[in-house]
Amino acid sequence: MLSSLRIELEGEIEKSRNDLLGSLFQGFIMKNIYKGYADILHMSTLHPYSQYVTRVDNKIIWTLNTLNIEAKENIADKIKQIEKVNIKYREKEYKITSIKEENISYKDLVKENYLRDGKRILKVKFLTPTSFKQDGRYVLFPSIRLIFQSLMMKFDKASTDMEVFSKDILETFENNIEICGYKLRSTAFHLDGTKVPAFIGEITVNIKGPKQLVNFANMLIAFGTYSGVGIKTGIGMGGIAFE
Amino acid sequence: MLSSLRIELEGEIEKSRNDLLGSLFQGFIMKNIYKGYADILHMSTLHPYSQYVTRVDNKIIWTLNTLNIEAKENIADKIKQIEKVNIKYREKEYKITSIKEENISYKDLVKENYLRDGKRILKVKFLTPTSFKQDGRYVLFPSIRLIFQSLMMKFDKASTDMEVFSKDILETFENNIEICGYKLRSTAFHLDGTKVPAFIGEITVNIKGPKQLVNFANMLIAFGTYSGVGIKTGIGMGGIAFE
Repeated sequence: MLSSLRIELEGEIEKSRNDLLGSLFQGFIMKNIYKGYADILHMSTLHPYSQYVTRVDNKIIWTLNTLNIEAKENIADKIKQIEKVNIKYREKEYKITSIKEENISYKDLVKENYLRDGKRILKVKFLTPTSFKQDGRYVLFPSIRLIFQSLMMKFDKASTDMEVFSKDILETFENNIEICGYKLRSTAFHLDGTKVPAFIGEITVNIKGPKQLVNFANMLIAFGTYSGVGIKTGIGMGGIAFE
Repeated sequence: MLSSLRIELEGEIEKSRNDLLGSLFQGFIMKNIYKGYADILHMSTLHPYSQYVTRVDNKIIWTLNTLNIEAKENIADKIKQIEKVNIKYREKEYKITSIKEENISYKDLVKENYLRDGKRILKVKFLTPTSFKQDGRYVLFPSIRLIFQSLMMKFDKASTDMEVFSKDILETFENNIEICGYKLRSTAFHLDGTKVPAFIGEITVNIKGPKQLVNFANMLIAFGTYSGVGIKTGIGMGGIAFE
């Protein structure tokens, strides 16, 4: 099951320091969940959640997504019961003013995407700093390969009974999908005193080829709104939306 | 000899249709130069000039660069004598209010760049829609390879007595120079009723490696402010500046 909490917060935030909140909120989550589960998260390479902070119409929106039922119960359901978010950084406090929840099963996610004609032109927005790592280096520009490789791997890790990643499929994606428009800039995600090179903005992708491929790509991007894309999606990077 | 005319124009221009002026001014040039030379330009693959239109502080600036003495005498020196630019498109007329000229010999260009410590961090601005063609397709993102390959080839074509392009050097550039920051968006350059996919904006490049490489890269980018970068620099695309 995929679950998304859209938490509206009241409080002050330094301009363009949303990234800071991302990692502070991560700490807040870890402090407020069952220690045994926090330990499991620390040890595993599977990150069954993503979270990031954005500002919409001057409101602070904290999006907290979980990618399986266990994570929903252990993380999202716990956070839902909390009224205030206490952040250590400069003793800040954020009051939760509203929470919207959306859930969808993997079965429905797949069904929804395969029973309709997926869009061939999609605008994908990178809401928070996004980055990829390739050959040990950060990659500052998005590419079809990096985006869908990341989404497929996250999908396989998150859903227990489906495996979608294969080199063949990734190559088919690369040959049939192109970035046909974009508005992007580089940025940095601040983390423990270091800066992770990243980008933010939006791209338009054009999906050619058979309908199945179009639907599959649509499904992965819809999944991506829960999982995030690229690295460090657990601490505020790689939040995406699409239209 | 490299020569640059910065021509300030008075007149009306449709917003964000600078690209239109680029190809119209190209027609204006062809009409006003010696026919024999225009024919030579039409036939040759060498484009010994570049020109583009930008808007600076609400003024229309037409930049006309020539890359050798012959082109300077046949194009720039002819255009300098003209007071008005008559454009066929909707019977528009542009009055030339001022002309600034800058000239530099290839010898001095090389000398200037090799006798000083070149900058390792350079901000390169793509002032007008810029594009590359690779394997028959337009490339919508800049890369170190595409930029410097274009500049080296233009340099070799333009200067009669120096050859700088080699695959080895291009690889060294790729391994030592990286785009470390950017702010870019895709755009389209309108041309004869079609749209050429392109990008506009700025990148910051970081040049590592030995001083000679740094100076060489600086020299090529300085040359690029005359030649432009990428495709269709004769009709308004690929105008660059750096700081």
